[in-house]
Amino acid sequence: MPRAVKKKPTGKKRTHAASAARALPVLPEVIIENISPCIDNGRFPAKAEQGRVFTVEADIFKDGHDIIKAALWHRPANQKKWQTAVMTLKDNDRWQGSFTPDQNLFYQYTIAAWMDPVATWLDHVEKKAGRYPNIQSEADEGLRLLDEMDKQAGKDAQKKISELHKTLRRTAGDSQALLEAVRGPLFQEIIGAFPLQEQLTVHEPAAELMVDRPKAVFGAWYEMFPRSQGKTPGQSATFADCIRRLPEIKKMGFDVIYLPPIHPIGTTNRKGPNNTLKAGQQVPGSPWAIGNAAGGHKSVHPDLGTLKDFASFVKAAQEKDLEIALDFAIQCSPDHPYVQEHPEWFYRLPDGTVRYAENPPKKYEDIYPVNFRNQDRAALWQELKSIVEFWIQQGVKIFRVDNPHTKPLYFWSWLIREIQKQHPEVFFLAEAFTRPKVMKFLAKAGFTQSYTYFTWRNAKKELREYFEELTQTEMRHYFRGNLFTNTPDILHAYLQQGGRPAFKVRATLAATLLPTWGIYSGYELCEHAAREEGSEEYLNSEKYDYKVWDWDRPGNIKEYIALLNRIRRENPALQEYANLRFFESTNDQVLCYGKWTQDKQNILVVCVNLDPHNPQEDRLQLPVWEFGLEDWQQYSAQDLVTGREYRWQGREQYVRLDPQAEPAHIFLLGKL
Amino acid sequence: MPRAVKKKPTGKKRTHAASAARALPVLPEVIIENISPCIDNGRFPAKAEQGRVFTVEADIFKDGHDIIKAALWHRPANQKKWQTAVMTLKDNDRWQGSFTPDQNLFYQYTIAAWMDPVATWLDHVEKKAGRYPNIQSEADEGLRLLDEMDKQAGKDAQKKISELHKTLRRTAGDSQALLEAVRGPLFQEIIGAFPLQEQLTVHEPAAELMVDRPKAVFGAWYEMFPRSQGKTPGQSATFADCIRRLPEIKKMGFDVIYLPPIHPIGTTNRKGPNNTLKAGQQVPGSPWAIGNAAGGHKSVHPDLGTLKDFASFVKAAQEKDLEIALDFAIQCSPDHPYVQEHPEWFYRLPDGTVRYAENPPKKYEDIYPVNFRNQDRAALWQELKSIVEFWIQQGVKIFRVDNPHTKPLYFWSWLIREIQKQHPEVFFLAEAFTRPKVMKFLAKAGFTQSYTYFTWRNAKKELREYFEELTQTEMRHYFRGNLFTNTPDILHAYLQQGGRPAFKVRATLAATLLPTWGIYSGYELCEHAAREEGSEEYLNSEKYDYKVWDWDRPGNIKEYIALLNRIRRENPALQEYANLRFFESTNDQVLCYGKWTQDKQNILVVCVNLDPHNPQEDRLQLPVWEFGLEDWQQYSAQDLVTGREYRWQGREQYVRLDPQAEPAHIFLLGKL
Repeated sequence: MPRAVKKKPTGKKRTHAASAARALPVLPEVIIENISPCIDNGRFPAKAEQGRVFTVEADIFKDGHDIIKAALWHRPANQKKWQTAVMTLKDNDRWQGSFTPDQNLFYQYTIAAWMDPVATWLDHVEKKAGRYPNIQSEADEGLRLLDEMDKQAGKDAQKKISELHKTLRRTAGDSQALLEAVRGPLFQEIIGAFPLQEQLTVHEPAAELMVDRPKAVFGAWYEMFPRSQGKTPGQSATFADCIRRLPEIKKMGFDVIYLPPIHPIGTTNRKGPNNTLKAGQQVPGSPWAIGNAAGGHKSVHPDLGTLKDFASFVKAAQEKDLEIALDFAIQCSPDHPYVQEHPEWFYRLPDGTVRYAENPPKKYEDIYPVNFRNQDRAALWQELKSIVEFWIQQGVKIFRVDNPHTKPLYFWSWLIREIQKQHPEVFFLAEAFTRPKVMKFLAKAGFTQSYTYFTWRNAKKELREYFEELTQTEMRHYFRGNLFTNTPDILHAYLQQGGRPAFKVRATLAATLLPTWGIYSGYELCEHAAREEGSEEYLNSEKYDYKVWDWDRPGNIKEYIALLNRIRRENPALQEYANLRFFESTNDQVLCYGKWTQDKQNILVVCVNLDPHNPQEDRLQLPVWEFGLEDWQQYSAQDLVTGREYRWQGREQYVRLDPQAEPAHIFLLGKL
Repeated sequence: MPRAVKKKPTGKKRTHAASAARALPVLPEVIIENISPCIDNGRFPAKAEQGRVFTVEADIFKDGHDIIKAALWHRPANQKKWQTAVMTLKDNDRWQGSFTPDQNLFYQYTIAAWMDPVATWLDHVEKKAGRYPNIQSEADEGLRLLDEMDKQAGKDAQKKISELHKTLRRTAGDSQALLEAVRGPLFQEIIGAFPLQEQLTVHEPAAELMVDRPKAVFGAWYEMFPRSQGKTPGQSATFADCIRRLPEIKKMGFDVIYLPPIHPIGTTNRKGPNNTLKAGQQVPGSPWAIGNAAGGHKSVHPDLGTLKDFASFVKAAQEKDLEIALDFAIQCSPDHPYVQEHPEWFYRLPDGTVRYAENPPKKYEDIYPVNFRNQDRAALWQELKSIVEFWIQQGVKIFRVDNPHTKPLYFWSWLIREIQKQHPEVFFLAEAFTRPKVMKFLAKAGFTQSYTYFTWRNAKKELREYFEELTQTEMRHYFRGNLFTNTPDILHAYLQQGGRPAFKVRATLAATLLPTWGIYSGYELCEHAAREEGSEEYLNSEKYDYKVWDWDRPGNIKEYIALLNRIRRENPALQEYANLRFFESTNDQVLCYGKWTQDKQNILVVCVNLDPHNPQEDRLQLPVWEFGLEDWQQYSAQDLVTGREYRWQGREQYVRLDPQAEPAHIFLLGKL
């Protein structure tokens, strides 16, 4: 709520008055409300990107007709001094101000507004001078204001103010003389140098902003199972094998390699191929059944190598400008050391045994869920925090969190804040596929990025609706979608049935709708066999098995993916989050949208044929006026997919997309 | 923000755990957010009506799959004990609960939510029983829950619980036996009697609600100048004359008589006919130039009578169930006693004189504005409060506040709250014709009712947009429009040019769009002469002059107004605020809308021809399914204006409205 800033009383009379006023509450003088962003009224930080402009809006007004001014105050949380940015009135009492945070840190921001007595007075002088020959009272008010400026001025300026004082007196209130004086350069210089503020009101408390590094906004992710990166059937690969895979992943243009858990895997109730029970010890088990006698969340699976081997892998990736993201799955196999050491951290049955995970009637016999609300809560939470810190020590700065929505939601706001206070460069991706409001809450609570409903949005209408919600509503200030085309758990029917064109369609959408996208390995090979009809599970999923892949399998789309990632890197418009705009077109199978930078130096128009089976044609309606073009102007449209260049004019353009050739255009528009 | 309610630690182990947990913040267990209404996140009270149901919604959810419950807690501010109302899940994690506040008082309300361990367990039992022959762990959990219930139970119930305990043990985990037990009547009785709550979370702080008396929502207002109620030209009427006017006002069906200021009028710079300057003392002056040697805001103009005469008028009105509303205009004529007694309350020019009111280049030489921010602020504010209290002592419970937007906006939140804490029956109407957000802020700050833009909304599209904003958005929870058809300052061109039909059109709209409406006297006579072309001022306005009216002037619409007010009184649907729904129709000159009670016992459909010059016809689309009717069903439509009755079927109906006959239908629908 805004708070009026009371100046300290000076002198006797003021002190007396201040004491009399204590009988009344101190109330804000200027109203500052409806600040955006200000997530849940400031309960949670908004999100911004290091080096990218951050804009704040608010409704600001006061009683009467005085002229007000406003400023956006901002500072990195480690500094006391506020920086200020001028806010300007848009319309209908809505004000806007911006700044560009240059550090990867928490920031604070708030709004100050005040009555500007000089501007108000100048306005009165201008309005009255044309109507009344003498406005002595305004001349007198000018003298009073000059006296106020004098208090702030140094000796040189005081001389000038004294001169202005004489000029104003000399007018004797004559309207024209007064007008001339206030419009003169000396007067303008002084009021510029010594701005006066009355009724200064600062909104409290300040809001928070998490300023993330650019990788948190713009990145291409590649998910892979380390144990599947080798060449020997029936055997786990090693981190050394993973290092050998790096050039190929780099060549496809990815920035982040995300690994499912790399920890020792439990033996009790180990899951076998296609999620079968009682598979015995010959199968590797699900990596999410974390922990056995060899260690838990701070250990590496011996089959993959040692912690040192992992460090070498991280280092080799870094040398190729690739970052490693680790899975953070808070659950334990029955063989996890925690189960012995901290039985109180688990759910105990009345007979003393520990309860495995279930979501009735589903059972997950190979894992124990953790009881976050146990009596030893503090020790558990601190230990969980120490796991993240452990991997930060090993060079990991990105964590993909498994099923965060089944843990106390505020646990995440505590954990992520604790980590980011010390390590602002560390960021978290929420794997919560659950109800919309729960997903939004996790993002507000601190998750840097979130999985989305993208895999289940395949029709034009639903894509448009969903992505307008993500990028055009308040969500854009706290929720950042990471568009995975597939995951080890999600192979959508569209991909199962659409063939190679379907894989290209979904990759194009993911890579261009939002600045962060990803694939789960196998996607580049158009792997599309489901476990059974109607299932989104992969057949013979590597989740439960050893697997050897032929990464050069015929029909792969590695080059297309490399092309997409190159286009993304070369076009800044694709590196921004909220600049997505959909365009009208009449064919329900063709989705058309654009992204452009604020300076309009980079304008992309994407057209995707959502039908993987048939060629489709359409007439797009391009808002050329938004691109700074007149209707009659010609412009170039270079298809970055095929390299073909077109010369266009006006808003309506014809496209035809054959999925067997290229299901999408990515046009770069240019002036001629 | 929601707060987890921690139970007091009992026993040693718990104390130890609680102390360890202190290292972590206490965080809410259940998320309760996006509460509606909750004005500006609880900074201001919402508004409700005494005796009418008040509904609260919120997003409520938690981690995982446990079953949650929620309750709306509410209490009058003078009581400590919370009442609770069950909330139910609508969809998408949105919950709803209601209560009917029966007292005209401030209330508090908040939301509590918790995990229901019994419901969660029952759900598990049901889901697992069909799948597994033995669910011993669920039987054990049942025993634990019974133990918890036992702690709340008296002796008789403990016996029953003990019996259930035995039954559960006897099942030995057999799924079918367990199912049978928990579905049995004894079990159901006990879980109904001893509900268990875990992770109880109460949203804090509680929100506030101002529960107004019904007159604050539903009323018909008549504004009149007391001095114009007599029969002698060039002379002021008296309160005795006003008493003689009461039967006629009552006959027209009005509930509230609002009087412009009744105080002594200043002589300095007194304004003459048509707002001329230097009119001398032969003119009565504007009643808003308050105060002279005879007194100020707590005095009555001697021409009107004495305070005792005023009391007689109030009493005579009360006897006819008419309430008197007074104007509260915080400004002083140069002759007001305050100017001498408290020169520090006014704006002083450097030469020591007091500054009159102005909004450059406009000047208001007959009044001084008050300096609310003067050094003696507390004394001024308290004195202003005492003015309101003075008139409350004289029996006035409604205040129409002149230009509240030119006074510090938070002054009103302080004043209205101070008054309503002692006198909740007192309410305030804001005469703020200013920018939308300022008007909304005044309503949030406490004004019970507000003037609106109604007089300037004459076209179908703008009427629909504006009234949907008023009644369908969050505004409906804090802003109550009072629809005056005209005011002493606003005679819209539509009325100047539209003749008698225009007066009927606008009266019909005002009387049926919202439950509170009003006219400024003269409207019933279709007074429509403007001071000049393009002006909204009345010619020879009684603001500046003595005036004698012929209240039975030919062409008057007194009977039509009486009919409107009778229809309003007889139809509860017209007494509600937010139940307005517009219907589709194709003619841009015909506005069609409905209002109906929740029980659909009273359904009104209003069609208004907005064109005062020509007959118009249209086909309405009535949403008969909303009225509980099938498309094939016949129903009756009785036009309450003409008394004619129609038999209708289906959604599309034809209407024809001739402004020379009746420009509006007000249909009462009925089942056949």
